[in-house]
Amino acid sequence: MNVNVVETKERVLADNEAAAEETRRRMRAGKTLLVNLMGSPGAGKTSVLLRLIALLGQNYRIGVMEADVDSDVDAAAVAAAGAKAVQLHTGGLCHMDADMTARGLDALGAEGLDLIFLENVGNLVCPAEFEIGADVRLMILSVPEGDDKPLKYPLMFQISDVLLVNKTDTLPVFDFDAAALETRVRALNDRIKIFPVSAAKNEGFGPVAALLEEKLRERRRLPCG
Amino acid sequence: MNVNVVETKERVLADNEAAAEETRRRMRAGKTLLVNLMGSPGAGKTSVLLRLIALLGQNYRIGVMEADVDSDVDAAAVAAAGAKAVQLHTGGLCHMDADMTARGLDALGAEGLDLIFLENVGNLVCPAEFEIGADVRLMILSVPEGDDKPLKYPLMFQISDVLLVNKTDTLPVFDFDAAALETRVRALNDRIKIFPVSAAKNEGFGPVAALLEEKLRERRRLPCG
Repeated sequence: MNVNVVETKERVLADNEAAAEETRRRMRAGKTLLVNLMGSPGAGKTSVLLRLIALLGQNYRIGVMEADVDSDVDAAAVAAAGAKAVQLHTGGLCHMDADMTARGLDALGAEGLDLIFLENVGNLVCPAEFEIGADVRLMILSVPEGDDKPLKYPLMFQISDVLLVNKTDTLPVFDFDAAALETRVRALNDRIKIFPVSAAKNEGFGPVAALLEEKLRERRRLPCG
Repeated sequence: MNVNVVETKERVLADNEAAAEETRRRMRAGKTLLVNLMGSPGAGKTSVLLRLIALLGQNYRIGVMEADVDSDVDAAAVAAAGAKAVQLHTGGLCHMDADMTARGLDALGAEGLDLIFLENVGNLVCPAEFEIGADVRLMILSVPEGDDKPLKYPLMFQISDVLLVNKTDTLPVFDFDAAALETRVRALNDRIKIFPVSAAKNEGFGPVAALLEEKLRERRRLPCG
């Protein structure tokens, strides 16, 4: 049975990469930046998104795809913050794949948007395996989850471009060693950019927004197609 | 492609149920109780386990299967606490299935043990779908994850027998409504038993240990096979 599972997975991942490449082409042609936002349940994905929309929404047209196994609570919150939003249900799957993302972009109406966030399903395993065609892979780890997570979920840290360490306002009540975390993360991925933030206190988002703006400017300078 | 995925999944789940039933028979025959411990990354699965081993280890022979995508840190901690422990690697999979669990029981040496915990991969989605043949499905939700999680990961709350709400010592620093959580959980599952605990402060584990002892006594009263 194991062999079958592995073969199925390889075929699924090959199909997935073809769909992801098509999304990359579409984003370049539209001069749109696509961000894949990942993290555990409760890491603060929606709260972080609301802070970034507040910072970037004045100058950029923002779209959000909220992926969930179930429920519509996040899309409503994001739409209230002024972003164009669509809720996607994965039908029990623990991640979004590239084909589901492409259909999400159709449902959202990606054309004319500058910046699109996919808020992936809360999970540190499956979303790391399924490339969706994003320009930026942004993961959130929250302080209460612990500084040992790179040891247990290495792939997520390996494939991410940006790591936000959220809920820094709770550092006093948790046994969390930020230096140990950074050492563990850098051992897996030496090009990742790490930012401490607190969505609850609205702290630390300026440099994150600046990084996304830099990438938006790069995207606009690139030739279409 | 979606149709293929669903068909594969149905076949996989049918194979899984057959293996789970075989494990249930094996546990009844050995008068052993198998607990499937589930929760998000960082919810406190290993810390809770260490507290339960301290309470139950004097009177019962305890075994632990630590399932992880990678790393051996948890098995070492559990073995140091006096339980018989084995580390299982899922090879990138986001959950344990019944076949992997059966092989884990072989590797652990299940015979002669009273109580076996499987610490599942940190994830609120996939482990809920894969029955492993456990007698008790025990999930942990930690306060920092938020009281809205039943809305977003309903299946995990539906299939669990016991819910530990962990990290209650951090209630003062989080906007967490315990009554709202309970209402949301009970709407999904009216037979679930809910216990507030703090692994950090070692609070609230007496009633949880008592519940497991009651189930251990029931198991011993049942006829073999």
